[in-house]
Amino acid sequence: MNFTASQIAEVLQGEVEGNPEVEVSSLSKIEEGTIGTLSFLSNPKYTQYIYTTNASIVIVDKTFKLEKPIEATLIRVDDSRIAFSTLLDYYNQAKGTKVGIEQPSYISSSAKYGSDVYIGAFSHIGNNVVIGNNVIIYPNTTIGDNSIIDNNTTIYSGVNIYSDTVIGKNCTIHSGAIIGSDGFGFAPNTDNEYSKVPQIGNVIIEDNVEIGANTTIDRATLGSTIIKKGVKLDNLIQVGHNVIIGKNTVIAAQSGISGSTKIGKNCMIGGQVAFAGHINIGDNVMVGGLSGVSRNLKAGAIVRGTPAMPIKSYAKSFVHFKQLPEIIERIKKLEQQAK
Amino acid sequence: MNFTASQIAEVLQGEVEGNPEVEVSSLSKIEEGTIGTLSFLSNPKYTQYIYTTNASIVIVDKTFKLEKPIEATLIRVDDSRIAFSTLLDYYNQAKGTKVGIEQPSYISSSAKYGSDVYIGAFSHIGNNVVIGNNVIIYPNTTIGDNSIIDNNTTIYSGVNIYSDTVIGKNCTIHSGAIIGSDGFGFAPNTDNEYSKVPQIGNVIIEDNVEIGANTTIDRATLGSTIIKKGVKLDNLIQVGHNVIIGKNTVIAAQSGISGSTKIGKNCMIGGQVAFAGHINIGDNVMVGGLSGVSRNLKAGAIVRGTPAMPIKSYAKSFVHFKQLPEIIERIKKLEQQAK
Amino acid sequence: MNFTASQIAEVLQGEVEGNPEVEVSSLSKIEEGTIGTLSFLSNPKYTQYIYTTNASIVIVDKTFKLEKPIEATLIRVDDSRIAFSTLLDYYNQAKGTKVGIEQPSYISSSAKYGSDVYIGAFSHIGNNVVIGNNVIIYPNTTIGDNSIIDNNTTIYSGVNIYSDTVIGKNCTIHSGAIIGSDGFGFAPNTDNEYSKVPQIGNVIIEDNVEIGANTTIDRATLGSTIIKKGVKLDNLIQVGHNVIIGKNTVIAAQSGISGSTKIGKNCMIGGQVAFAGHINIGDNVMVGGLSGVSRNLKAGAIVRGTPAMPIKSYAKSFVHFKQLPEIIERIKKLEQQAK
Repeated sequence: MNFTASQIAEVLQGEVEGNPEVEVSSLSKIEEGTIGTLSFLSNPKYTQYIYTTNASIVIVDKTFKLEKPIEATLIRVDDSRIAFSTLLDYYNQAKGTKVGIEQPSYISSSAKYGSDVYIGAFSHIGNNVVIGNNVIIYPNTTIGDNSIIDNNTTIYSGVNIYSDTVIGKNCTIHSGAIIGSDGFGFAPNTDNEYSKVPQIGNVIIEDNVEIGANTTIDRATLGSTIIKKGVKLDNLIQVGHNVIIGKNTVIAAQSGISGSTKIGKNCMIGGQVAFAGHINIGDNVMVGGLSGVSRNLKAGAIVRGTPAMPIKSYAKSFVHFKQLPEIIERIKKLEQQAK
Repeated sequence: MNFTASQIAEVLQGEVEGNPEVEVSSLSKIEEGTIGTLSFLSNPKYTQYIYTTNASIVIVDKTFKLEKPIEATLIRVDDSRIAFSTLLDYYNQAKGTKVGIEQPSYISSSAKYGSDVYIGAFSHIGNNVVIGNNVIIYPNTTIGDNSIIDNNTTIYSGVNIYSDTVIGKNCTIHSGAIIGSDGFGFAPNTDNEYSKVPQIGNVIIEDNVEIGANTTIDRATLGSTIIKKGVKLDNLIQVGHNVIIGKNTVIAAQSGISGSTKIGKNCMIGGQVAFAGHINIGDNVMVGGLSGVSRNLKAGAIVRGTPAMPIKSYAKSFVHFKQLPEIIERIKKLEQQAK
Repeated sequence: MNFTASQIAEVLQGEVEGNPEVEVSSLSKIEEGTIGTLSFLSNPKYTQYIYTTNASIVIVDKTFKLEKPIEATLIRVDDSRIAFSTLLDYYNQAKGTKVGIEQPSYISSSAKYGSDVYIGAFSHIGNNVVIGNNVIIYPNTTIGDNSIIDNNTTIYSGVNIYSDTVIGKNCTIHSGAIIGSDGFGFAPNTDNEYSKVPQIGNVIIEDNVEIGANTTIDRATLGSTIIKKGVKLDNLIQVGHNVIIGKNTVIAAQSGISGSTKIGKNCMIGGQVAFAGHINIGDNVMVGGLSGVSRNLKAGAIVRGTPAMPIKSYAKSFVHFKQLPEIIERIKKLEQQAK
């Protein structure tokens, strides 16, 4: 499908500057733009590319000033980033949505599902499962007995959901995610062997949550592991049993949260971070990538390192860590003087 | 199903203190207890909750002393933790076990399986596979040619087992675990390209092993990667080719063990730990979370850090690391005095 | 199948030293060799084992000198490692290749596939997918709409490939790998909630690439995440959106690369390494395991630590880190003397 600059400007309520009849059929990054594509400029670091890009149309802020003539047609809008994101949504929707029950699939006779769902082939829907309206379940997914999937949630292929899981509205679960596996609970006996502690709780995922590819979320020993509304988890994250993650907290890839730890709302956690078990992390906490958090953190703390310390202290100490060979020389010199 | 306090006390050989006719239908944590649930108190840190919990029944140790009257009915036993674990087992068993061959599934005509097995739909059982009695294989699992799964083992949905794998009795393999993938072996050639070193060994998992969700265990180049009896691996762990993990060793989530490393028995390894390749770790070793172990460790070693060092030394050095800015000030002052 | 020493020597163009009629049926490591197996000696560290091994045949370099008589028959070749690798290939090929479309599988009527392919049961091939000749797709794999898989590529069971993915020739994708999941892109709004940034790019994997088990590769926001020719990725690696990994770069298990970072060619990256987003790593860079790389690195850099620093500086500073308690004592002494 081709669209002209004037058609796009109408959708975005923007103003055309240049040829309103120029056509585009796809989207591009400004530094990689080719003829027939539409791009956008928002970050000033990329301003240089507007003079060299081959993109046919570029969306810019109303306030943006050109320093020399350019090839592309501009569309001026209030916020170029938001406008571009709107177009991305249009593009994604234009790809169409899957609907229907593909065969062969396995749906227990006691399971129920709403209207306009897609259940891909080789998906296995267990006993008493309840699936809402407009839910999309890609192929090769397994949903365990008694689980509930609410409206408008999308589950990509190869997801494994254990029994008794509850998933809210508008969630996205990426391929390979495991939800509801047993918590890691074992009690040692006198022969140095371990007996399994049965894990009979479940996992509750609230509305608007996104779970990354191959991320694992263990069920609670008792009660529930809870991922609250609006949480975004990246790929390959481990969430232990009985963990609670607060509203709108965002966690980057490969981080791990040990059992029974509570994380507040609106936190931002970097990649490859580890949280010890049974600790409390306040709201609005920021943790730098690769940190190890072993103690409670107050609301608003900004930390880094292993064990995690305030980010400014860490930076200072690390500068000195790098200077250690030189510092030793200074001490040696002092010792010689003392003699 | 409802049970009275006196019925439960009989199962646990405990004594009722309070109303023997009060009924419960499920289990709870003491701090989250609601009417109709049964809870337990073992850790003294939670003693406060016995005075506020809404749980109808609480299991406590015989030696526990109440400091004021409470609402709940108590059941006094020798060890409240073990008693509660017994009830968890009852609860889990009451959920019932899956049995039968669900359709559609794919079972090679040369594969064999024992009595009372469950093979979920969309499971693929390869040529010459041998499956024992009471084995449970959830849907969407693939078991490669010539593999052996012994009695009473449970394999959750979406597990992928490569050819020639041997799995013992009473094992639990969680969803998304990959067993027998190729070891990471490549030989550089003169053009800076890599040729694959064929990986023709296998993986052997002994009895009573638990493998966490999305954990990966590579097959040996030659011979076997071996997970010995009673080992417990958490989620998202990487086990390289030709690794051997000794009896009853426990490893927390997201740790990785490079090729050909041998870990002793009864070790306790924290989360996000990395072991270099071709090293030997003795029995009863403890490694703190996030450590990097690059050398052999003697039996009984307790280490932490990257590279790992004795845990006490690490703690001391880290205290000083945090003090580095202040230490530099002290050196500066000494230098001024020396002038 | 049994082979005599003289038959094997003929294949390898080597010379027999000992009994040319001795027979072997499988391969072994020299330190674990048993009667009826063939082994090899290349690394001098293992020379001792040639005098104790029970392997019936050992392949050695032409230049190798025996210090005392041995039991095994030797086959002398130019390079024993390469010769053994050749035999491993023979062994692997002798196991036979899968061919045919297993039922039940799901192949969209708009998908195309070449000659001599294997598509395992419960695999789901989406709309407009194009699969080349000699491609092997194990069971329970999902290949999203519009994806292309070129000739001679092998995809193991349980792989999930999202729409629009392009995979080259001679690639190997291990079980549980996720290719093309959404990049981790969210824009905060005024209520501290996050809106998803649509991810409409794709993943391109060039020829001769190997992707490890449970590794995740996110699609680009716009444009492509690109894994160039000859790259080898180990298990459980995270590759963010719009990342580019250069030719023949090798990355060990559990490492993670944040969005939009570019890694050069012929790099060697250890395990559990983390790269920040939007940085440039030059060609031939080496990064030690467990490092955190937060800045650009020039071609040929060799670094370690978090944040990563030149490997020699790191080693020196770490020695002093371990000495910190002792260094403090020296400063105290100086301070006393100054008084």
